[in-house]
Amino acid sequence: MIDPSHHPIGVFDSGLGGLTVVKEIHKLLPNEQVVYFGDTARVPYGTKSRPTIIRYSREIVRILLKHKVKMVVVACNTASSLALETLKKEFDLPILGVIDPGARKAVRLTRNKKVGIIATSSTVKSGKYVLKIRQLDRDIDVISSACPLFVPLVEEGWFDNAITTQIARQYLSNMKKHNIDTLILGCTHYPLLKNVLHDVMGPRVQLVDSASEVAIQVKELLLKFRMLRTSLRPGQHLFIVSDEPKQFSQLASRFLGGGIKHVRRHIYV
Amino acid sequence: MIDPSHHPIGVFDSGLGGLTVVKEIHKLLPNEQVVYFGDTARVPYGTKSRPTIIRYSREIVRILLKHKVKMVVVACNTASSLALETLKKEFDLPILGVIDPGARKAVRLTRNKKVGIIATSSTVKSGKYVLKIRQLDRDIDVISSACPLFVPLVEEGWFDNAITTQIARQYLSNMKKHNIDTLILGCTHYPLLKNVLHDVMGPRVQLVDSASEVAIQVKELLLKFRMLRTSLRPGQHLFIVSDEPKQFSQLASRFLGGGIKHVRRHIYV
Repeated sequence: MIDPSHHPIGVFDSGLGGLTVVKEIHKLLPNEQVVYFGDTARVPYGTKSRPTIIRYSREIVRILLKHKVKMVVVACNTASSLALETLKKEFDLPILGVIDPGARKAVRLTRNKKVGIIATSSTVKSGKYVLKIRQLDRDIDVISSACPLFVPLVEEGWFDNAITTQIARQYLSNMKKHNIDTLILGCTHYPLLKNVLHDVMGPRVQLVDSASEVAIQVKELLLKFRMLRTSLRPGQHLFIVSDEPKQFSQLASRFLGGGIKHVRRHIYV
Repeated sequence: MIDPSHHPIGVFDSGLGGLTVVKEIHKLLPNEQVVYFGDTARVPYGTKSRPTIIRYSREIVRILLKHKVKMVVVACNTASSLALETLKKEFDLPILGVIDPGARKAVRLTRNKKVGIIATSSTVKSGKYVLKIRQLDRDIDVISSACPLFVPLVEEGWFDNAITTQIARQYLSNMKKHNIDTLILGCTHYPLLKNVLHDVMGPRVQLVDSASEVAIQVKELLLKFRMLRTSLRPGQHLFIVSDEPKQFSQLASRFLGGGIKHVRRHIYV
Protein backbone atom coordinates (compact mmCIF):
# COMPACT_ATOMS: atom_id res chain seq x y z
CA MET A 1 0.00 0.00 0.00
CA ILE A 2 1.25 3.46 -0.86
CA ASP A 3 1.57 5.77 2.13
CA PRO A 4 0.06 9.11 1.16
CA SER A 5 1.09 10.85 4.36
CA HIS A 6 4.09 12.53 2.75
CA HIS A 7 1.93 13.95 -0.04
CA PRO A 8 0.93 17.62 0.04
CA ILE A 9 -2.37 19.21 1.05
CA GLY A 10 -4.11 20.94 -1.86
CA VAL A 11 -5.62 24.34 -1.13
CA PHE A 12 -7.40 26.51 -3.67
CA ASP A 13 -9.06 29.87 -3.90
CA SER A 14 -10.24 32.24 -6.60
CA GLY A 15 -7.20 34.39 -5.90
CA LEU A 16 -5.06 35.33 -2.94
CA GLY A 17 -7.50 35.21 -0.03
CA GLY A 18 -7.02 31.50 0.60
CA LEU A 19 -3.47 32.21 1.70
CA THR A 20 -4.90 33.15 5.10
CA VAL A 21 -5.89 29.47 5.34
CA VAL A 22 -2.41 28.34 4.24
CA LYS A 23 -0.94 30.53 6.96
CA GLU A 24 -3.05 28.84 9.66
CA ILE A 25 -2.33 25.34 8.31
CA HIS A 26 1.36 26.14 8.33
CA LYS A 27 1.14 27.43 11.90
CA LEU A 28 -0.71 24.38 13.21
CA LEU A 29 0.99 21.77 11.02
CA PRO A 30 4.45 23.09 10.18
CA ASN A 31 5.61 19.79 8.71
CA GLU A 32 2.86 19.62 6.11
CA GLN A 33 3.44 20.65 2.51
CA VAL A 34 0.86 22.72 0.71
CA VAL A 35 0.17 23.04 -3.00
CA TYR A 36 -1.84 26.23 -3.38
CA PHE A 37 -3.78 27.12 -6.51
CA GLY A 38 -4.98 30.72 -6.95
CA ASP A 39 -7.22 31.26 -9.97
CA THR A 40 -5.94 34.78 -10.53
CA ALA A 41 -6.79 34.76 -14.25
CA ARG A 42 -10.49 34.36 -13.49
CA VAL A 43 -10.83 36.01 -10.07
CA PRO A 44 -13.28 37.00 -8.56
CA TYR A 45 -15.74 34.12 -8.15
CA GLY A 46 -18.17 36.01 -5.90
CA THR A 47 -20.17 37.58 -8.70
CA LYS A 48 -20.29 34.55 -10.97
CA SER A 49 -22.87 31.81 -11.39
CA ARG A 50 -23.04 28.35 -9.86
CA PRO A 51 -22.36 26.36 -13.07
CA THR A 52 -19.30 28.50 -13.75
CA ILE A 53 -17.96 28.15 -10.20
CA ILE A 54 -18.45 24.36 -10.34
CA ARG A 55 -16.64 24.14 -13.68
CA TYR A 56 -13.70 26.22 -12.41
CA SER A 57 -13.45 24.28 -9.13
CA ARG A 58 -13.49 20.92 -10.91
CA GLU A 59 -10.68 22.03 -13.22
CA ILE A 60 -8.58 23.14 -10.24
CA VAL A 61 -9.07 19.91 -8.26
CA ARG A 62 -7.87 18.01 -11.34
CA ILE A 63 -4.74 20.18 -11.42
CA LEU A 64 -4.14 19.62 -7.69
CA LEU A 65 -4.53 15.87 -8.18
CA LYS A 66 -1.68 15.95 -10.68
CA HIS A 67 0.41 17.19 -7.77
CA LYS A 68 -0.67 14.10 -5.79
CA VAL A 69 -2.47 15.97 -3.04
CA LYS A 70 -3.81 13.78 -0.22
CA MET A 71 -6.72 16.09 0.53
CA VAL A 72 -8.24 19.32 -0.82
CA VAL A 73 -9.22 22.42 1.10
CA VAL A 74 -11.65 24.67 -0.77
CA ALA A 75 -10.44 27.90 0.82
CA CYS A 76 -12.82 30.07 -1.21
CA ASN A 77 -16.19 30.71 0.46
CA THR A 78 -17.96 31.10 -2.87
CA ALA A 79 -16.61 27.79 -4.20
CA SER A 80 -17.36 26.12 -0.84
CA SER A 81 -20.95 27.37 -1.04
CA LEU A 82 -21.60 26.46 -4.64
CA ALA A 83 -19.28 23.62 -5.64
CA LEU A 84 -18.31 21.61 -2.54
CA GLU A 85 -21.10 19.03 -2.78
CA THR A 86 -20.41 18.40 -6.45
CA LEU A 87 -16.67 18.05 -5.85
CA LYS A 88 -17.26 15.58 -3.00
CA LYS A 89 -19.39 13.43 -5.30
CA GLU A 90 -16.95 13.54 -8.20
CA PHE A 91 -13.59 13.06 -6.47
CA ASP A 92 -12.43 10.26 -4.25
CA LEU A 93 -10.36 12.05 -1.59
CA PRO A 94 -11.17 14.09 1.51
CA ILE A 95 -12.41 17.56 0.55
CA LEU A 96 -13.01 20.26 3.13
CA GLY A 97 -14.77 23.59 2.62
CA VAL A 98 -14.73 26.70 4.78
CA ILE A 99 -18.48 27.08 5.45
CA ASP A 100 -18.78 24.24 7.93
CA PRO A 101 -15.81 25.32 10.10
CA GLY A 102 -16.97 28.95 10.12
CA ALA A 103 -20.53 28.01 11.01
CA ARG A 104 -19.40 25.69 13.84
CA LYS A 105 -17.18 28.34 15.35
CA ALA A 106 -19.97 30.96 15.25
CA VAL A 107 -22.48 28.60 16.87
CA ARG A 108 -19.97 27.90 19.65
CA LEU A 109 -19.28 31.60 20.23
CA THR A 110 -22.70 33.25 20.12
CA ARG A 111 -24.45 33.95 23.44
CA ASN A 112 -27.53 35.85 22.35
CA LYS A 113 -28.07 33.49 19.38
CA LYS A 114 -27.90 36.28 16.82
CA VAL A 115 -25.26 35.65 14.18
CA GLY A 116 -24.36 37.83 11.22
CA ILE A 117 -22.68 36.73 7.99
CA ILE A 118 -20.93 38.98 5.53
CA ALA A 119 -19.83 37.46 2.24
CA THR A 120 -19.86 37.82 -1.55
CA SER A 121 -23.17 37.99 -3.42
CA SER A 122 -22.90 34.37 -4.58
CA THR A 123 -22.14 33.03 -1.10
CA VAL A 124 -25.03 34.95 0.44
CA LYS A 125 -27.42 33.87 -2.31
CA SER A 126 -26.46 30.22 -1.83
CA GLY A 127 -27.80 30.33 1.73
CA LYS A 128 -25.25 27.69 2.78
CA TYR A 129 -24.11 29.42 5.98
CA VAL A 130 -27.69 29.92 7.14
CA LEU A 131 -28.50 26.28 6.42
CA LYS A 132 -25.46 25.00 8.27
CA ILE A 133 -26.02 27.20 11.33
CA ARG A 134 -29.69 26.22 11.53
CA GLN A 135 -28.73 22.54 11.32
CA LEU A 136 -26.45 23.02 14.31
CA ASP A 137 -28.88 25.15 16.33
CA ARG A 138 -32.23 26.07 14.95
CA ASP A 139 -32.83 28.73 17.57
CA ILE A 140 -30.15 30.97 16.11
CA ASP A 141 -31.22 34.02 14.12
CA VAL A 142 -29.01 34.58 11.11
CA ILE A 143 -28.65 37.88 9.22
CA SER A 144 -26.69 37.88 5.96
CA SER A 145 -25.33 40.77 3.98
CA ALA A 146 -23.47 40.77 0.66
CA CYS A 147 -20.50 43.17 0.64
CA PRO A 148 -19.27 43.28 -2.97
CA LEU A 149 -16.96 46.25 -2.42
CA PHE A 150 -14.89 44.63 0.34
CA VAL A 151 -12.78 42.48 -1.99
CA PRO A 152 -11.78 45.38 -4.26
CA LEU A 153 -11.12 47.52 -1.17
CA VAL A 154 -8.73 44.88 0.17
CA GLU A 155 -7.06 44.54 -3.21
CA GLU A 156 -6.69 48.32 -3.31
CA GLY A 157 -4.98 48.08 0.11
CA TRP A 158 -7.45 50.43 1.81
CA PHE A 159 -7.46 48.57 5.12
CA ASP A 160 -7.64 51.43 7.59
CA ASN A 161 -9.22 54.05 5.46
CA ALA A 162 -12.09 56.41 6.35
CA ILE A 163 -13.92 55.50 3.15
CA THR A 164 -13.67 51.79 3.93
CA THR A 165 -15.15 52.51 7.35
CA GLN A 166 -18.08 54.36 5.78
CA ILE A 167 -18.74 51.56 3.31
CA ALA A 168 -18.59 49.04 6.15
CA ARG A 169 -21.06 51.17 8.14
CA GLN A 170 -23.48 51.06 5.24
CA TYR A 171 -23.15 47.30 4.68
CA LEU A 172 -23.36 46.48 8.38
CA SER A 173 -26.17 48.80 9.46
CA ASN A 174 -28.69 45.98 9.31
CA MET A 175 -26.45 43.72 11.43
CA LYS A 176 -26.15 46.41 14.07
CA LYS A 177 -29.92 46.91 14.20
CA HIS A 178 -30.38 43.19 14.79
CA ASN A 179 -27.96 43.32 17.69
CA ILE A 180 -25.80 40.37 16.58
CA ASP A 181 -22.97 39.31 18.91
CA THR A 182 -21.05 37.19 16.39
CA LEU A 183 -20.09 38.07 12.82
CA ILE A 184 -18.79 35.48 10.36
CA LEU A 185 -16.25 36.87 7.91
CA GLY A 186 -17.53 34.75 5.04
CA CYS A 187 -14.83 35.60 2.52
CA THR A 188 -11.10 34.99 2.86
CA HIS A 189 -10.35 38.62 2.00
CA TYR A 190 -12.27 40.03 4.94
CA PRO A 191 -9.84 39.23 7.80
CA LEU A 192 -7.69 42.00 6.36
CA LEU A 193 -10.51 44.43 7.23
CA LYS A 194 -10.71 43.27 10.85
CA ASN A 195 -9.76 46.65 12.33
CA VAL A 196 -12.45 48.47 10.38
CA LEU A 197 -15.05 45.81 11.15
CA HIS A 198 -14.20 45.96 14.85
CA ASP A 199 -14.56 49.73 14.85
CA VAL A 200 -17.92 49.60 13.13
CA MET A 201 -19.44 46.67 15.06
CA GLY A 202 -18.04 47.60 18.48
CA PRO A 203 -16.14 45.49 21.01
CA ARG A 204 -19.10 43.30 22.00
CA VAL A 205 -19.26 41.63 18.60
CA GLN A 206 -16.87 38.73 17.97
CA LEU A 207 -15.49 38.35 14.47
CA VAL A 208 -15.25 34.78 13.18
CA ASP A 209 -12.42 34.20 10.76
CA SER A 210 -12.74 30.58 9.72
CA ALA A 211 -9.08 30.12 8.70
CA SER A 212 -7.87 28.91 12.11
CA GLU A 213 -10.89 26.61 12.45
CA VAL A 214 -10.23 25.18 8.99
CA ALA A 215 -6.67 24.33 10.04
CA ILE A 216 -8.01 22.46 13.06
CA GLN A 217 -10.39 20.46 10.88
CA VAL A 218 -7.57 19.72 8.43
CA LYS A 219 -5.60 18.26 11.32
CA GLU A 220 -8.58 16.21 12.51
CA LEU A 221 -9.15 14.84 9.02
CA LEU A 222 -5.50 13.92 8.54
CA LEU A 223 -5.46 12.20 11.93
CA LYS A 224 -8.63 10.31 11.08
CA PHE A 225 -7.22 9.07 7.77
CA ARG A 226 -3.75 8.55 9.29
CA MET A 227 -2.25 10.92 6.76
CA LEU A 228 -0.31 13.37 8.96
CA ARG A 229 3.13 13.99 7.56
CA THR A 230 5.71 12.49 9.88
CA SER A 231 8.82 14.03 8.37
CA LEU A 232 10.57 16.35 10.76
CA ARG A 233 11.70 18.69 8.03
CA PRO A 234 9.44 21.73 7.65
CA GLY A 235 7.12 21.57 4.65
CA GLN A 236 7.96 23.23 1.35
CA HIS A 237 4.98 24.89 -0.24
CA LEU A 238 4.24 25.31 -3.93
CA PHE A 239 2.07 28.13 -5.24
CA ILE A 240 0.40 27.90 -8.63
CA VAL A 241 -1.55 30.73 -10.22
CA SER A 242 -3.43 31.02 -13.49
CA ASP A 243 -2.26 34.59 -14.18
CA GLU A 244 1.23 36.10 -13.91
CA PRO A 245 3.19 34.83 -10.89
CA LYS A 246 4.86 38.21 -10.42
CA GLN A 247 1.72 40.13 -9.46
CA PHE A 248 0.75 37.24 -7.19
CA SER A 249 4.05 37.20 -5.31
CA GLN A 250 3.88 40.92 -4.66
CA LEU A 251 0.36 40.87 -3.23
CA ALA A 252 0.63 37.51 -1.49
CA SER A 253 2.88 38.73 1.31
CA ARG A 254 -0.07 40.83 2.56
CA PHE A 255 -2.00 37.64 3.20
CA LEU A 256 0.75 35.28 4.21
CA GLY A 257 2.76 37.85 6.12
CA GLY A 258 6.05 36.83 4.60
CA GLY A 259 8.00 36.12 1.45
CA ILE A 260 6.68 33.59 -1.04
CA LYS A 261 8.93 31.25 -2.99
CA HIS A 262 8.14 28.66 -5.65
CA VAL A 263 5.39 30.34 -7.64
CA ARG A 264 4.47 28.75 -10.95
CA ARG A 265 1.97 29.62 -13.61
CA HIS A 266 -0.64 27.23 -14.93
CA ILE A 267 -2.23 27.95 -18.29
CA TYR A 268 -5.59 26.35 -19.02
CA VAL A 269 -5.69 24.56 -22.34
CA MET B 1 -17.29 37.67 -54.64
CA ILE B 2 -19.21 37.37 -51.40
CA ASP B 3 -20.72 40.62 -50.18
CA PRO B 4 -19.98 40.92 -46.46
CA SER B 5 -22.05 44.06 -45.97
CA HIS B 6 -25.01 42.16 -44.55
CA HIS B 7 -22.77 40.47 -41.95
CA PRO B 8 -22.79 41.67 -38.35
CA ILE B 9 -20.30 43.83 -36.50
CA GLY B 10 -18.53 41.98 -33.68
CA VAL B 11 -18.13 43.86 -30.41
CA PHE B 12 -16.51 42.46 -27.29
CA ASP B 13 -15.77 43.47 -23.75
CA SER B 14 -14.75 41.82 -20.51
CA GLY B 15 -18.31 42.18 -19.31
CA LEU B 16 -21.16 44.62 -19.71
CA GLY B 17 -19.40 47.95 -20.19
CA GLY B 18 -19.02 47.53 -23.94
CA LEU B 19 -22.76 47.81 -24.29
CA THR B 20 -22.33 51.59 -24.13
CA VAL B 21 -20.49 51.20 -27.45
CA VAL B 22 -23.25 48.99 -28.87
CA LYS B 23 -25.75 51.69 -27.91
CA GLU B 24 -23.85 54.35 -29.86
CA ILE B 25 -23.35 52.09 -32.88
CA HIS B 26 -27.05 51.33 -32.87
CA LYS B 27 -27.89 55.04 -32.67
CA LEU B 28 -25.60 56.02 -35.54
CA LEU B 29 -26.09 52.91 -37.68
CA PRO B 30 -29.53 51.52 -36.88
CA ASN B 31 -29.47 49.07 -39.77
CA GLU B 32 -26.32 47.31 -38.61
CA GLN B 33 -26.44 44.04 -36.72
CA VAL B 34 -24.18 43.51 -33.75
CA VAL B 35 -22.88 40.29 -32.24
CA TYR B 36 -21.74 41.20 -28.74
CA PHE B 37 -19.52 39.01 -26.60
CA GLY B 38 -19.24 39.75 -22.87
CA ASP B 39 -16.68 37.64 -21.04
CA THR B 40 -18.69 37.61 -17.84
CA ALA B 41 -17.16 34.34 -16.59
CA ARG B 42 -13.69 35.92 -16.47
CA VAL B 43 -14.48 39.60 -15.84
CA PRO B 44 -12.72 41.89 -14.88
CA TYR B 45 -9.72 42.25 -17.22
CA GLY B 46 -8.37 45.43 -15.65
CA THR B 47 -6.34 43.70 -12.94
CA LYS B 48 -4.99 40.89 -15.11
CA SER B 49 -1.75 40.52 -17.03
CA ARG B 50 -0.98 41.18 -20.67
CA PRO B 51 -0.48 37.52 -21.74
CA THR B 52 -3.80 36.59 -20.15
CA ILE B 53 -5.68 39.48 -21.79
CA ILE B 54 -4.19 38.59 -25.18
CA ARG B 55 -5.19 34.95 -24.79
CA TYR B 56 -8.76 35.85 -23.79
CA SER B 57 -9.13 38.40 -26.60
CA ARG B 58 -7.86 35.96 -29.21
CA GLU B 59 -10.36 33.32 -28.07
CA ILE B 60 -13.21 35.81 -28.31
CA VAL B 61 -12.29 37.04 -31.80
CA ARG B 62 -12.33 33.40 -32.92
CA ILE B 63 -15.84 33.01 -31.50
CA LEU B 64 -17.00 36.22 -33.22
CA LEU B 65 -15.56 34.98 -36.52
CA LYS B 66 -17.78 31.91 -36.28
CA HIS B 67 -20.65 34.39 -36.38
CA LYS B 68 -19.20 35.79 -39.63
CA VAL B 69 -18.54 39.28 -38.33
CA LYS B 70 -17.25 41.74 -40.92
CA MET B 71 -15.26 43.75 -38.39
CA VAL B 72 -14.40 43.64 -34.70
CA VAL B 73 -14.67 46.44 -32.15
CA VAL B 74 -12.59 45.86 -29.02
CA ALA B 75 -14.88 47.79 -26.69
CA CYS B 76 -12.80 47.03 -23.61
CA ASN B 77 -10.13 49.60 -22.81
CA THR B 78 -7.88 47.05 -21.14
CA ALA B 79 -8.04 44.67 -24.11
CA SER B 80 -7.56 47.61 -26.51
CA SER B 81 -4.45 48.66 -24.57
CA LEU B 82 -2.88 45.24 -24.25
CA ALA B 83 -4.15 43.03 -27.08
CA LEU B 84 -5.15 45.20 -30.06
CA GLU B 85 -1.81 45.11 -31.85
CA THR B 86 -1.55 41.33 -31.51
CA LEU B 87 -5.11 40.83 -32.75
CA LYS B 88 -4.48 43.06 -35.78
CA LYS B 89 -1.45 40.97 -36.70
CA GLU B 90 -3.20 37.65 -36.23
CA PHE B 91 -6.60 38.26 -37.85
CA ASP B 92 -7.41 39.39 -41.35
CA LEU B 93 -10.35 41.75 -40.84
CA PRO B 94 -10.73 45.36 -39.69
CA ILE B 95 -10.28 45.59 -35.89
CA LEU B 96 -10.92 48.81 -34.01
CA GLY B 97 -10.03 49.58 -30.40
CA VAL B 98 -11.29 52.33 -28.13
CA ILE B 99 -7.98 54.02 -27.22
CA ASP B 100 -7.45 55.75 -30.55
CA PRO B 101 -10.96 57.27 -30.76
CA GLY B 102 -10.82 58.44 -27.13
CA ALA B 103 -7.38 60.00 -27.56
CA ARG B 104 -8.40 61.79 -30.77
CA LYS B 105 -11.49 63.26 -29.18
CA ALA B 106 -9.52 64.50 -26.16
CA VAL B 107 -6.85 66.11 -28.33
CA ARG B 108 -9.57 67.90 -30.29
CA LEU B 109 -11.31 69.15 -27.13
CA THR B 110 -8.49 70.32 -24.87
CA ARG B 111 -7.67 74.03 -24.85
CA ASN B 112 -5.04 74.27 -22.14
CA LYS B 113 -3.32 71.09 -23.37
CA LYS B 114 -3.70 69.30 -20.06
CA VAL B 115 -5.52 66.00 -20.40
CA GLY B 116 -6.37 63.49 -17.67
CA ILE B 117 -7.02 59.78 -18.10
CA ILE B 118 -8.77 57.54 -15.62
CA ALA B 119 -8.77 53.81 -16.31
CA THR B 120 -8.08 50.36 -14.87
CA SER B 121 -4.64 49.52 -13.52
CA SER B 122 -3.73 47.49 -16.62
CA THR B 123 -4.79 50.24 -19.02
CA VAL B 124 -2.85 52.90 -17.11
CA LYS B 125 0.24 50.69 -16.86
CA SER B 126 0.17 50.02 -20.61
CA GLY B 127 0.72 53.75 -21.27
CA LYS B 128 -1.22 53.45 -24.56
CA TYR B 129 -3.38 56.54 -24.08
CA VAL B 130 -0.35 58.69 -23.25
CA LEU B 131 1.52 57.36 -26.28
CA LYS B 132 -1.39 58.01 -28.63
CA ILE B 133 -2.04 61.53 -27.34
CA ARG B 134 1.65 62.43 -27.59
CA GLN B 135 1.73 61.13 -31.16
CA LEU B 136 -1.14 63.45 -32.02
CA ASP B 137 0.20 66.48 -30.15
CA ARG B 138 3.41 66.27 -28.22
CA ASP B 139 2.76 69.53 -26.37
CA ILE B 140 -0.06 67.98 -24.37
CA ASP B 141 0.55 67.12 -20.72
CA VAL B 142 -1.09 63.85 -19.76
CA ILE B 143 -1.91 62.75 -16.20
CA SER B 144 -3.12 59.19 -15.65
CA SER B 145 -4.77 57.65 -12.63
CA ALA B 146 -5.87 54.07 -12.03
CA CYS B 147 -9.30 53.84 -10.36
CA PRO B 148 -9.77 50.16 -9.44
CA LEU B 149 -12.84 50.78 -7.28
CA PHE B 150 -14.92 52.45 -10.00
CA VAL B 151 -15.90 49.21 -11.75
CA PRO B 152 -17.17 47.51 -8.58
CA LEU B 153 -18.95 50.74 -7.60
CA VAL B 154 -20.78 50.76 -10.94
CA GLU B 155 -21.61 47.07 -10.59
CA GLU B 156 -22.92 47.77 -7.10
CA GLY B 157 -25.14 50.47 -8.65
CA TRP B 158 -23.74 53.27 -6.46
CA PHE B 159 -23.92 55.93 -9.16
CA ASP B 160 -24.98 58.98 -7.19
CA ASN B 161 -23.73 58.03 -3.80
CA ALA B 162 -21.81 60.17 -1.28
CA ILE B 163 -19.21 57.41 -0.84
CA THR B 164 -18.65 57.19 -4.58
CA THR B 165 -18.12 60.95 -4.62
CA GLN B 166 -15.52 60.67 -1.85
CA ILE B 167 -13.67 57.87 -3.62
CA ALA B 168 -13.72 59.90 -6.84
CA ARG B 169 -12.33 62.91 -4.95
CA GLN B 170 -9.44 60.78 -3.72
CA TYR B 171 -8.66 59.28 -7.14
CA LEU B 172 -8.98 62.61 -8.95
CA SER B 173 -7.13 64.91 -6.55
CA ASN B 174 -3.98 64.78 -8.64
CA MET B 175 -5.92 65.64 -11.80
CA LYS B 176 -7.43 68.67 -10.13
CA LYS B 177 -4.03 69.89 -8.96
CA HIS B 178 -2.74 69.67 -12.52
CA ASN B 179 -5.64 71.80 -13.72
CA ILE B 180 -6.69 69.50 -16.57
CA ASP B 181 -9.56 70.68 -18.80
CA THR B 182 -10.34 67.32 -20.41
CA LEU B 183 -10.78 63.94 -18.76
CA ILE B 184 -10.83 60.68 -20.73
CA LEU B 185 -13.11 58.05 -19.21
CA GLY B 186 -10.79 55.19 -20.11
CA CYS B 187 -13.08 52.33 -19.10
CA THR B 188 -16.50 51.54 -20.51
CA HIS B 189 -17.99 51.40 -17.02
CA TYR B 190 -17.12 54.98 -16.16
CA PRO B 191 -19.75 56.83 -18.23
CA LEU B 192 -22.24 55.60 -15.63
CA LEU B 193 -20.37 57.73 -13.06
CA LYS B 194 -20.59 60.90 -15.17
CA ASN B 195 -22.65 62.82 -12.62
CA VAL B 196 -20.20 62.13 -9.81
CA LEU B 197 -17.20 62.89 -12.02
CA HIS B 198 -18.78 66.18 -13.13
CA ASP B 199 -19.41 67.16 -9.52
CA VAL B 200 -15.86 66.39 -8.50
CA MET B 201 -14.04 67.89 -11.48
CA GLY B 202 -16.30 70.93 -11.90
CA PRO B 203 -18.04 72.32 -14.98
CA ARG B 204 -14.86 73.51 -16.74
CA VAL B 205 -13.62 69.96 -17.28
CA GLN B 206 -14.99 68.08 -20.27
CA LEU B 207 -15.51 64.35 -19.89
CA VAL B 208 -14.56 62.24 -22.90
CA ASP B 209 -16.61 59.10 -23.31
CA SER B 210 -15.15 57.35 -26.33
CA ALA B 211 -18.30 55.34 -27.20
CA SER B 212 -19.79 57.93 -29.57
CA GLU B 213 -16.41 58.49 -31.21
CA VAL B 214 -15.98 54.75 -31.67
CA ALA B 215 -19.34 54.58 -33.47
CA ILE B 216 -18.16 57.33 -35.84
CA GLN B 217 -14.97 55.41 -36.61
CA VAL B 218 -16.96 52.22 -37.15
CA LYS B 219 -19.01 54.07 -39.75
CA GLU B 220 -15.90 55.47 -41.44
CA LEU B 221 -14.31 52.02 -41.57
CA LEU B 222 -17.42 50.41 -43.03
CA LEU B 223 -17.68 53.15 -45.62
CA LYS B 224 -14.03 52.76 -46.52
CA PHE B 225 -14.39 49.00 -47.00
CA ARG B 226 -17.84 49.38 -48.63
CA MET B 227 -19.37 47.19 -45.97
CA LEU B 228 -22.27 49.33 -44.69
CA ARG B 229 -25.41 47.26 -44.38
CA THR B 230 -27.90 48.40 -46.97
CA SER B 231 -30.96 46.55 -45.71
CA LEU B 232 -33.68 48.90 -44.58
CA ARG B 233 -34.82 46.59 -41.81
CA PRO B 234 -33.40 47.54 -38.40
CA GLY B 235 -30.57 45.32 -37.22
CA GLN B 236 -31.15 42.40 -34.87
CA HIS B 237 -28.45 42.06 -32.24
CA LEU B 238 -27.14 38.90 -30.63
CA PHE B 239 -25.57 38.90 -27.18
CA ILE B 240 -23.25 36.10 -26.08
CA VAL B 241 -21.84 35.80 -22.59
CA SER B 242 -19.50 33.30 -20.98
CA ASP B 243 -21.40 33.19 -17.68
CA GLU B 244 -25.15 32.89 -17.02
CA PRO B 245 -27.27 34.89 -19.50
CA LYS B 246 -29.83 35.72 -16.79
CA GLN B 247 -27.53 37.86 -14.66
CA PHE B 248 -26.33 39.57 -17.81
CA SER B 249 -29.80 40.47 -19.06
CA GLN B 250 -30.73 41.99 -15.72
CA LEU B 251 -27.68 44.25 -15.50
CA ALA B 252 -27.41 45.01 -19.20
CA SER B 253 -30.39 47.33 -19.33
CA ARG B 254 -28.40 49.77 -17.15
CA PHE B 255 -25.89 50.13 -19.93
CA LEU B 256 -28.06 49.79 -22.98
CA GLY B 257 -31.01 51.66 -21.56
CA GLY B 258 -33.56 49.12 -22.70
CA GLY B 259 -34.55 45.46 -22.79
CA ILE B 260 -32.17 42.89 -24.20
CA LYS B 261 -33.31 39.95 -26.27
CA HIS B 262 -31.36 37.05 -27.77
CA VAL B 263 -28.80 36.33 -25.07
CA ARG B 264 -26.86 33.07 -25.42
CA ARG B 265 -24.19 31.45 -23.34
CA HIS B 266 -20.86 30.36 -24.66
CA ILE B 267 -18.85 27.80 -22.71
CA TYR B 268 -15.13 27.63 -23.32
CA VAL B 269 -13.88 24.15 -24.02
